[in-house]
Amino acid sequence: MSVTSASPDVRIAVSTAIFSVRTTDDGDQLMIPLVRRTREPFLGQWALPGGWLGGSEGLEDAAGRTLAETTALAPSWLEQLYTFGDIDRSPDARVVSVVYWALLRSDLVEAQRATAGAPENVEWFPVEALPELAFDHQHIIDYAVWRLRNKAGYSRIAAALLPDEFTLAELRGVYETVLGKRLDPSNFRRLLEGSEALVPTEAFRTGPHRPARLFQYNADIDLAELGPI
Amino acid sequence: MSVTSASPDVRIAVSTAIFSVRTTDDGDQLMIPLVRRTREPFLGQWALPGGWLGGSEGLEDAAGRTLAETTALAPSWLEQLYTFGDIDRSPDARVVSVVYWALLRSDLVEAQRATAGAPENVEWFPVEALPELAFDHQHIIDYAVWRLRNKAGYSRIAAALLPDEFTLAELRGVYETVLGKRLDPSNFRRLLEGSEALVPTEAFRTGPHRPARLFQYNADIDLAELGPI
Repeated sequence: MSVTSASPDVRIAVSTAIFSVRTTDDGDQLMIPLVRRTREPFLGQWALPGGWLGGSEGLEDAAGRTLAETTALAPSWLEQLYTFGDIDRSPDARVVSVVYWALLRSDLVEAQRATAGAPENVEWFPVEALPELAFDHQHIIDYAVWRLRNKAGYSRIAAALLPDEFTLAELRGVYETVLGKRLDPSNFRRLLEGSEALVPTEAFRTGPHRPARLFQYNADIDLAELGPI
Repeated sequence: MSVTSASPDVRIAVSTAIFSVRTTDDGDQLMIPLVRRTREPFLGQWALPGGWLGGSEGLEDAAGRTLAETTALAPSWLEQLYTFGDIDRSPDARVVSVVYWALLRSDLVEAQRATAGAPENVEWFPVEALPELAFDHQHIIDYAVWRLRNKAGYSRIAAALLPDEFTLAELRGVYETVLGKRLDPSNFRRLLEGSEALVPTEAFRTGPHRPARLFQYNADIDLAELGPI
């Protein structure tokens, strides 16, 4: 097959899988917001937030814009995931989707909702208990979760899920939720104390237990660089 | 900015950065084929092989097709790199490029050229000595080289640059050329002998030196899985 000019009926969409760790009745869970579709195809089914690429905006700008328009969320971290372009992924048209993945600090989810108002048709789901999804979005989310877990294993990226200050137990909790497994507290503490990733503050988390020191991430180190875990 | 329908003037191109290790007067070098442009914009300048996405082909198929049409090469390994979509990357039109990176076994470069005939306007360049490039292709190649070096550091991907059978010295040579640094022969041998990545054959490479045993990669292990290096 020879193609010498662009096919005019290929459309470009941009979508974002944005993760946060949220506290539920079942404990802390890795969750993702989905948007219920209000038109065909897949009317009434859940899909990733997204929209069409504008003629005068870059891809990352389009990801931020469509995420804000559909969910009123602004990510703490945003990175391109992959471009999906199978010819049969949408029943009506040929759509190529440039997909981003993103992280959102737990403490900002409610704050952003309070400021922007909660958009209709948006609901958060645990990644382990997703509803039936439109298009190939289940496949896309599976890949995004894999990428998040992979990257959490070799970088400090999980910091983008935490407030500015956190205890070591809170940091370990986020890693455990993202990775879906328990981590040994002593090993975890040793790994982090041996790295330059964390900066102790003078503040402590107080409560019914022994006061726990609050830490910050070292701002001089890029979150995506190789980390201590 | 709100965009509710696809902008009709965004076109999708697919390009491929394909690497091979080739022997030159300056020794083995990591090289890439470029295509001299025969039309504006950037008439006469060098660019990555590529073309427009067809309406009825997937992205990976389009990468393979446009690579074959422009260079007559068929990759030993092909993987999506990144999608580039800055609004000003092409002077005439809004073009989003889905870029693949690929590897080609050294022994197949000449074989494929002999079979398909050498296309006009194609020339191989060492990645360390590229000519002036059209569009943002220098930036794209820089990123592709980074990805190749990164992936070679934690997987067996460099095997896609070698014939089926090779000596340990030949394998080390490919890693040295890709990574751009010398590797200690004893450490290299020890790393590989301690892994299940290589299968010794009964054959030897003979010549002026001591005969060297030929190895094959273990076909049961995916090239992209974590490797011994």
